[in-house]
Amino acid sequence: MMRVVVVTLFPELFETFGQTSLVGRAVREGMLEIHTAQLREHGLGKHRSVDDTPYGGGSGMVLRVDCVVAAIEAAEVTLGARAHRVLLTPQGQPFRQTTAARWSQLQNVMFICGRYEGFDERVRSFVDEEASLGDFVMTGGEVAAMAMIEASARLIPGVLGNDASSAEESFSSVHGGGLEYPQFTRPVSFRDLEVPEVLKQGDHAKIAAWRREQASDRTRDRRPDLVDRDGEDEAQ
Amino acid sequence: MMRVVVVTLFPELFETFGQTSLVGRAVREGMLEIHTAQLREHGLGKHRSVDDTPYGGGSGMVLRVDCVVAAIEAAEVTLGARAHRVLLTPQGQPFRQTTAARWSQLQNVMFICGRYEGFDERVRSFVDEEASLGDFVMTGGEVAAMAMIEASARLIPGVLGNDASSAEESFSSVHGGGLEYPQFTRPVSFRDLEVPEVLKQGDHAKIAAWRREQASDRTRDRRPDLVDRDGEDEAQ
Repeated sequence: MMRVVVVTLFPELFETFGQTSLVGRAVREGMLEIHTAQLREHGLGKHRSVDDTPYGGGSGMVLRVDCVVAAIEAAEVTLGARAHRVLLTPQGQPFRQTTAARWSQLQNVMFICGRYEGFDERVRSFVDEEASLGDFVMTGGEVAAMAMIEASARLIPGVLGNDASSAEESFSSVHGGGLEYPQFTRPVSFRDLEVPEVLKQGDHAKIAAWRREQASDRTRDRRPDLVDRDGEDEAQ
Repeated sequence: MMRVVVVTLFPELFETFGQTSLVGRAVREGMLEIHTAQLREHGLGKHRSVDDTPYGGGSGMVLRVDCVVAAIEAAEVTLGARAHRVLLTPQGQPFRQTTAARWSQLQNVMFICGRYEGFDERVRSFVDEEASLGDFVMTGGEVAAMAMIEASARLIPGVLGNDASSAEESFSSVHGGGLEYPQFTRPVSFRDLEVPEVLKQGDHAKIAAWRREQASDRTRDRRPDLVDRDGEDEAQ
C-alpha cells in the first residue's frame, strides 16, 4: 500500500484524478491513498500569502521557505509518518520508469508542487529528492505530480490485474529498454490498411520473431538514443 | 487563440484542469479553448466497445482503428476545422520545450489519448505527429495531454501576464538551454539558512554575474547532458 500526499495550492486538481481509471481503482481497492495538503493554510497575513519578491531583483514571485516547510511538516503530522519528500522542479533529475519503480515500493511519498517563479532555494534542504517531468516548463508541479503518481501507482503489486502486461510494454527490460512492437486488432482491413499476414497465420515462433524484429527496427528508427541504453542506471 | 480537442475515454479528467490556475485564466480570457470528445460514443455494440484482442496473441486489449478514426473525424466536424492531430504514445518523440513552442502557434490541436495496451498500428496513418511525455509508462494519454496543454498554453502570446518571466526560466534560450539560477525571498534567515550576501547588497552587476555563474555551475552539476545542447534542434 502506497500513501501519497500532495502539498499544493490547487488540491481540487486531484479530485477526479483520484477517482478515475486505474488510479481510481487502486484507491477504491485500498492499494493507494491520495491526500492533499493546502499550502495556502500555511500562508501569512490576511491574504495567506505564500510568496514574496526575489532578493536581488527579477521578475515574478518566489515561494517562501517558511510557508513550504510548515506545510510539509504539518502534512507529515496528519500522515503520522515521515514521507519521502519529492520536490517538483525543472532543476530536478528527469523522471523515468526506474524512478516510478523505486517509488512504487515506498509507503509514504510526498509531492511538493510549486507555482510562480519557483521555490526559495532553501526549500531544497528540506526534501529528499528533486524530480522533473521533462525538459519543458509547466505552470506548476500539479500535473507533473499526477503523471508521476500514475506511473508509480500502476507498479504497486496487485494494481495491474494482468502482471504480464506490465512486463511486455515499452521501456521494460523485456525490450532492453526499447519500444514495443506494433499491435493490431479487428477489423482485418480498414480503408485499404491490412493486418500483416504473419499475425493472422498463428505460427507462434514466426510471430515472436517478427515482433522482436519490429521492436528492434522501430527503436533504432525512432529512438536511437535508447539503443544499448540497457543496463544504464538512472542518474541520481 | 488556440483550440484544443482531446479524444479520450475520460473527459471528466479535463474539467477542473480547464478551470484552474493559468490554464483556467487563459480559457476565461478567450485565449484557449479545451474541448473533449468521448471515444466511447464511437464504440461498437451494446457495450460501445472500442478495443479488441491483439492479432497474433498476447496480453491486454488494443484500441480499434475504426473507432479511433471515427472519433477523430467526428471531433473535427464539431470543431469545423482540420486539427493538428497528436497521438499520445510511448513510441512518439519525447515532448520538449521546443514542441510546446511550436504547438502554441497552432489554431487547432487534437490530442488522441489511448488506454489499454495501446493503439492498433494503423491509427498512426491518421495522425500528424506522435508524442511521448517521457520514458515512463502511463495508464493512458490523459495526464500527458494535460502536461502538454499546460506547457503549450503558457506560451500563447498574452497568456503569461509578465513576458519577462517566460524568457528567464529554465530551458529558455537565455540560459543556453540550461537550468535557472537559485532564487531567494524573505525571511532572510530560516533555521540557520541565510540569503547569500551578494543578493542583499543591491549591486546589480555583481548579482547578474553571480546568477550566471550559479546557473552554469548548477547545470553542469545536475544536468551535464544539457551543457552545449544549445542550438540543437528537436528530433522530429
